[in-house]
Amino acid sequence: MKKNAFYAQSGGVTAVINASACGVLETARKHKNKIGKVFAGRNGIIGALTEDMLDTSKESAATIAALRHTPGGAFGSARYKLKGLDDNRAEYERLIDVFRAHDIGYFFYNGGGDSMDTAQKVSQIGRKLKYPVTCIGIPKTVDNDLPITDVCPGFGSVAKYVAVSTREAALDVASMAKTSTKVFILEVMGRHTGWIAASSALAGQTAAEAPHVILFPEVPFDETRFLTRVEESVRRYEYCVVVVAEGARHPDGRFIADAGTRDAFGHAQLGGVAPAIASLVRDRLGYKTHYAIADYLQRSARHIASKVDVEQAYAVGKKAVELALQGQNAVMPIIVRKSQTPYRWAVGQVALSRVANREKMMPRGFIKRDGFGVTAACRRYLEPLIRGEDYPPYHNGLPRYVKLRNVSVAPRLRGNFVLK
Amino acid sequence: MKKNAFYAQSGGVTAVINASACGVLETARKHKNKIGKVFAGRNGIIGALTEDMLDTSKESAATIAALRHTPGGAFGSARYKLKGLDDNRAEYERLIDVFRAHDIGYFFYNGGGDSMDTAQKVSQIGRKLKYPVTCIGIPKTVDNDLPITDVCPGFGSVAKYVAVSTREAALDVASMAKTSTKVFILEVMGRHTGWIAASSALAGQTAAEAPHVILFPEVPFDETRFLTRVEESVRRYEYCVVVVAEGARHPDGRFIADAGTRDAFGHAQLGGVAPAIASLVRDRLGYKTHYAIADYLQRSARHIASKVDVEQAYAVGKKAVELALQGQNAVMPIIVRKSQTPYRWAVGQVALSRVANREKMMPRGFIKRDGFGVTAACRRYLEPLIRGEDYPPYHNGLPRYVKLRNVSVAPRLRGNFVLK
Repeated sequence: MKKNAFYAQSGGVTAVINASACGVLETARKHKNKIGKVFAGRNGIIGALTEDMLDTSKESAATIAALRHTPGGAFGSARYKLKGLDDNRAEYERLIDVFRAHDIGYFFYNGGGDSMDTAQKVSQIGRKLKYPVTCIGIPKTVDNDLPITDVCPGFGSVAKYVAVSTREAALDVASMAKTSTKVFILEVMGRHTGWIAASSALAGQTAAEAPHVILFPEVPFDETRFLTRVEESVRRYEYCVVVVAEGARHPDGRFIADAGTRDAFGHAQLGGVAPAIASLVRDRLGYKTHYAIADYLQRSARHIASKVDVEQAYAVGKKAVELALQGQNAVMPIIVRKSQTPYRWAVGQVALSRVANREKMMPRGFIKRDGFGVTAACRRYLEPLIRGEDYPPYHNGLPRYVKLRNVSVAPRLRGNFVLK
Repeated sequence: MKKNAFYAQSGGVTAVINASACGVLETARKHKNKIGKVFAGRNGIIGALTEDMLDTSKESAATIAALRHTPGGAFGSARYKLKGLDDNRAEYERLIDVFRAHDIGYFFYNGGGDSMDTAQKVSQIGRKLKYPVTCIGIPKTVDNDLPITDVCPGFGSVAKYVAVSTREAALDVASMAKTSTKVFILEVMGRHTGWIAASSALAGQTAAEAPHVILFPEVPFDETRFLTRVEESVRRYEYCVVVVAEGARHPDGRFIADAGTRDAFGHAQLGGVAPAIASLVRDRLGYKTHYAIADYLQRSARHIASKVDVEQAYAVGKKAVELALQGQNAVMPIIVRKSQTPYRWAVGQVALSRVANREKMMPRGFIKRDGFGVTAACRRYLEPLIRGEDYPPYHNGLPRYVKLRNVSVAPRLRGNFVLK
């Protein structure tokens, strides 16, 4: 009955995806009667397809424990979506071949909506090919766009980074506004959903406190109303802090980031949305502006991770192994909010079919009617997710992040599998 | 003999300028026999010129203590340079008038090179106008460009932020490089000097570790050699992290940020340097790129301040008051490095005339011969400056930064002084 397991990270990494890996590996090591070795895919699912796997049994317990406080993807992740079964059956069959060759009976896939779809399909194809694999999804996205689960591990830490950074930069701008920058713009991630931008609202409690304007992908950009709002903020408070999601769009659907700029040779330049907003404010209102683009800093900032997020990321990894050992298949652990005050949560589960390929948008009731801020309901939802600090250990002023040995598993299949 | 004091913050604020204010105020409160009230300029020196001062005696001891962990400028700062004595004698005379009206005998000016020049001139003009004022400068710049002092308070915390962020983002990029971003660019401050960019080098110890390339304002940008280096890094390590100072320039002196881009209406757009480098890498090498622009986040990030920097910022504030009480005039406290291993420092002093209007560039021996990294000597210099963490207190997941009451001092002079 003892089988090996395969674990892979998928899509954009987070500050806490390795905490989920830590949960999987530590829990699997406690059940050696049922789970043999845990192999990890080098660069995610690509590692399984190309039989390029890492033997996590070669890592010490201390190393595995340190994954809990190490950002990024310790085994490598990949943006690689398996196509539908009809389009590319060979990839699914190859996965089963590799699993069979290495006696792998458990597949833990740590990712977003696409990955949950893949995990479900692997479960189906395994049955058909008479090599049943227990497939468990483990939720991870900074975008917080998976349905059913109260929150996606990874989001709480970005939310905390963005809220803290907004509060800090606002103090800077406020102190300089008399003679220098009056409008500061922070660009954050979120191509389709405004969850990350919304979290900046936690930086302030009143209308006077930053952020004064939030621009969501869900709300078509109304230039005139936006400029009026910025001007009001500068008049009332002497400064204005704007937080904008990278996916904010014009009413016609064009990204604001697509400012129609051309370089010296006339080539189109797709700039960030922050510089586009900064130009608009400068040109139309004449205020001095500054902007920051957080980019990868926001999703790798383990130094300011949310303790709640770290605990939830670990918990879904642990639960994934427990579900597998209970004989569950094609399911994903979820975070369930049991109580708001005091905040209490538990880990539940849901069928992969219910989460695969479905995107959770912000509820309309979470965005203020004016489109520039969040409601009290949204604030109540977000607030517990950034609670608590979980500092990594430091050495000589820098966080001590772990580097794995990442020992390769000897291949057992002949020939190279060529990725499509 | 008892006189009031005036304290003002000047220029761009830092994560620890309020720690210097804390040092000034706490020390002054211990010497009430010599120093009456400490008034602070609202928006820096402008507050003195317009007789818009804040009575710090109205703040509780707990509030003053909390300044030590609060970023930004608690009284407001200003980019306002007093001109030469001949050009604008009226401003200096006005300062003396205000000081005389409020019985101010001590002037503490917390800023960079320009401010040290102003402090020195105020000392001179006071003597001439038969109202002698004890003028003490307090060093502050994130740019680390003041001479003589081993380091400027404010720099160590930016350095730590940049080193930590580089290490974290590098883990993110490394894990995604197989299928996604291969080159990541972080833009940091530093228009004339590369101190901040240099500090990113602390993120890695070996050539394999990020940052793989640093671009300094001191080194003319060699496009061909840069691209070769990026390509090598991607070939060897699968990815490349570039840290670039905002002031990096082409050999002809043009900023790289001046990419010659035009908006839809043909207006010149001065973009950031990071997007310009990203475009170059994408167009010439075909790699997928991402970039972050840290902007104000880097100099307000009190949540990841260097403990050494906080202590030094406090110490120069404290020393400023002690020097004044010793009867010193026209001096500035400096940080003296007493020992490298173990790192030990003390507070010394220097005449304002020796620091005013002089910029400390990076020594040529601190930049590698290839121009893309730092030497061992530079690393030795930087390393102790980011040591130690000094976390602010948190409440509900966010740093608890203090907001002062900022009670105005009743004006005693008639008429409005109009700023030039």
